[in-house]
Amino acid sequence: MNILILGIDGYIGWALAQKQLYLGNKVFGIDNFSRRETVKEMGSDSAIPIETMNKRISKIKEVYGNRIEFFEGDLTYSTFANDIVKKSCPDAIVHLAEQPSAPYSMIDQKHCIYTHQNNVIGNLNIIYAMKNFSPNSHLIKLGTMGEYGYDPGFVIPEGFFEIEYLGRKATVPYPKMAGSWYHWTKVHDSNNIMFACKTWGLKSTDIMQGIVYGTRLKDIPSYIYQPTRFDFDEAFGTVLNRFCSEAVIGHDLTVHGAGGQTRGFLALEDSIQCISLLIEKPPENENYRVVNQFDEQYSVKDLANKVKSIGDKKGLDVTIANTENPRKEKESHYYKADHKKLRDLGFKATRTIEEEIEYVLEDLHPHKDRILKNKQAIIKKIKWNSQVSSLISLNPSTP
Amino acid sequence: MNILILGIDGYIGWALAQKQLYLGNKVFGIDNFSRRETVKEMGSDSAIPIETMNKRISKIKEVYGNRIEFFEGDLTYSTFANDIVKKSCPDAIVHLAEQPSAPYSMIDQKHCIYTHQNNVIGNLNIIYAMKNFSPNSHLIKLGTMGEYGYDPGFVIPEGFFEIEYLGRKATVPYPKMAGSWYHWTKVHDSNNIMFACKTWGLKSTDIMQGIVYGTRLKDIPSYIYQPTRFDFDEAFGTVLNRFCSEAVIGHDLTVHGAGGQTRGFLALEDSIQCISLLIEKPPENENYRVVNQFDEQYSVKDLANKVKSIGDKKGLDVTIANTENPRKEKESHYYKADHKKLRDLGFKATRTIEEEIEYVLEDLHPHKDRILKNKQAIIKKIKWNSQVSSLISLNPSTP
Repeated sequence: MNILILGIDGYIGWALAQKQLYLGNKVFGIDNFSRRETVKEMGSDSAIPIETMNKRISKIKEVYGNRIEFFEGDLTYSTFANDIVKKSCPDAIVHLAEQPSAPYSMIDQKHCIYTHQNNVIGNLNIIYAMKNFSPNSHLIKLGTMGEYGYDPGFVIPEGFFEIEYLGRKATVPYPKMAGSWYHWTKVHDSNNIMFACKTWGLKSTDIMQGIVYGTRLKDIPSYIYQPTRFDFDEAFGTVLNRFCSEAVIGHDLTVHGAGGQTRGFLALEDSIQCISLLIEKPPENENYRVVNQFDEQYSVKDLANKVKSIGDKKGLDVTIANTENPRKEKESHYYKADHKKLRDLGFKATRTIEEEIEYVLEDLHPHKDRILKNKQAIIKKIKWNSQVSSLISLNPSTP
Repeated sequence: MNILILGIDGYIGWALAQKQLYLGNKVFGIDNFSRRETVKEMGSDSAIPIETMNKRISKIKEVYGNRIEFFEGDLTYSTFANDIVKKSCPDAIVHLAEQPSAPYSMIDQKHCIYTHQNNVIGNLNIIYAMKNFSPNSHLIKLGTMGEYGYDPGFVIPEGFFEIEYLGRKATVPYPKMAGSWYHWTKVHDSNNIMFACKTWGLKSTDIMQGIVYGTRLKDIPSYIYQPTRFDFDEAFGTVLNRFCSEAVIGHDLTVHGAGGQTRGFLALEDSIQCISLLIEKPPENENYRVVNQFDEQYSVKDLANKVKSIGDKKGLDVTIANTENPRKEKESHYYKADHKKLRDLGFKATRTIEEEIEYVLEDLHPHKDRILKNKQAIIKKIKWNSQVSSLISLNPSTP
């Protein structure tokens, strides 16, 4: 199969590319390297060192020959989006090329607009490129469980639910109630994709993904596996990855407020497993399929306690601090989300979260100095209720 | 009061400006004249002749002195949006500055992207300008009843409804199911405004407006009233205005398919009345208020029959033709929408739809030649399922 990965240089993108190559598929990748830039803008860097794309690709070619092609470019340019779809004749397009940080989108007007431009316009260009040049491709779009929000306290269905109102019943999209500009751009994308599938018969799987953590892929032998990036800064470090980074350098685990915020979580390994399953098994009886992609639910407090208990056993002496919550969110709430469809397709968690935390702590240990060097990037400066006046104040190391 | 009207040069904008001046308010207006350009792009022009903005403003100044200020500019530029909000210290901001045509947004990739850029990014800039420079203003945003769609066959509530799911009850936003890119941009806007109101305590009324028709404002004496534009082309002519234009030149009334499409309708006069009421009465016990703004529901078939019967009485010999439906929509469906809130605020229809149709036919009669001249712009070339390859084919008169 031909797999087109949009955002191949990212945390999930680079891991997925290697998995798909390992499975024998041909991989086309694009990236504009914005993640490398935005993490730098936050005054940080990947904890685990990563190669330049040139080196990444030439090492891949040594192992897999010409089964990879990379194009540098930006999806907000229609002609680039069209060209890459024409060139790759993709069976599946995996769209990971979005600005993925809620705090980053909340910095100020400029970052809100950038997030909308990059995500919404890029996604529309891909929809049109498919419609015009590859209408039978399967678009696998990375959305987020955060699109649903946690407001009404309903069991969160997989995209659609049947409700009754004034005596009439119907199956309708779950009303999304996102909590940041970033999350809303994903909702806008989902709505636009749903409309394109309905109007033009395009085929898409919209993934509502939980929060991803972890470093390893099990199957790929370590002598050919090239590590993917691992961020820990306040914008791009996901919560469990950030806790592990904090534990490794002896920094308090920074729990927002009471820490009762409950979400679905998933190991990187299992995110790749799920996306690979979806590639193999496109939707059959529907054009627009929504899946909730996570393994288990945890509260932020639970995770901090897990990292403390595992870290302490490794002699790290982990401390937890309840810090001011920069977000506007409930710190304790009902949360229960369906996640049956991927299990029905064959998904099974590779290992327990405790095992994965142990691996992350081990994998970060050699790079302790890299985290220490950019330690100030962990501290919360972006607040939902006020805006930082410029990036200078976010990044004290910028001249 | 200071009223900032975004899109003051448009069909509703120019009528509203005069009403607000007549009521004694100070009016600040902005426009980038895109509507004049896009109608030209469709190979058409306003049936009723309108003046340049310079002439419009100087005539206004003769009547109302310096109670009007106009700024040419584009809301997609953050600095322009910020500046105009700073300058005008608005009590109310009426946001009419969006690309308002569903067919126009469906032409092709370029027009889809333009509609998203103009509407979504412009709206975000206004939200941020308010947050940063005028957090107590009341944002009155023009959305559309088309945001809801007509899919599930529920009674359409005013924004929110209480539902039960698996034993839990909550009041949630009605799940929107729009039918064109244009309509979806309005949904994206509504979601973004709802989020800003919740996160920052901004105050907004989001108007879900029915389809507007008509030419006249009752109160303003005709010797000071300057006519607003009136479009009849396939993209910018709303259905009843288009039927009246067709009747006047002896063209078949072009009903899409079976004509059972039912929607809420509202006279221009009453749109202005409703917006003026909302300006006077901002939301009190909520930050984000949604109102359904229409007078009565009609099917497209009903309207064609009304125009025929009134036109025939005037000796026009009106014919009706059921043409291929360019849209992807049900041509017969359940439709019932709440519209109580504006009535509770005091809204009462100024006259019957039959009276208004009579006035429109009278007002168009002297401009018959202007409609005849651009008659080809009435014919449907934009289809939901395929894209026209370029605007050249839309507009045969373009060299």
